[in-house]
Amino acid sequence: MKARVTVTLKNGVLDPQGTAIEGSLAALSFAGVNSVRQGKVFEIDLDTNDAEQARASLTAMCEKLLANTVIEDFEISL
Amino acid sequence: MKARVTVTLKNGVLDPQGTAIEGSLAALSFAGVNSVRQGKVFEIDLDTNDAEQARASLTAMCEKLLANTVIEDFEISL
Repeated sequence: MKARVTVTLKNGVLDPQGTAIEGSLAALSFAGVNSVRQGKVFEIDLDTNDAEQARASLTAMCEKLLANTVIEDFEISL
Repeated sequence: MKARVTVTLKNGVLDPQGTAIEGSLAALSFAGVNSVRQGKVFEIDLDTNDAEQARASLTAMCEKLLANTVIEDFEISL
């Protein structure tokens, strides 16, 4: 079973990388960009086909390794 | 209008970061992980509310800055 985990910075957490991209887009003459925030995405292929078990296991992975839950949110889609 | 752009490595392109995460998950005793691939996600807030225009503008941004289309694929969701 393939799953996708998206890790993004929580609102209010400074995102210098996003700000740099915003500046670069402006320098490339892309107008109308209000804000850019960058996050990470993990495509994880799991052995199990049980959605509930996969979700539990992915949540544990996020909490232990993939996300820093102090400053980041994660989202699991199966 | 908020858009999300996901940039992932094309199939066949080596992903050492994903492999390292896979190793770390194994070291943390997470079993049943076949593969991990890491990508990037951009949350972009645009001025326009026209989906077609937003998509065209985001495609141009990906091609010029956000993705390296030689080795990466991108996906736009509005």
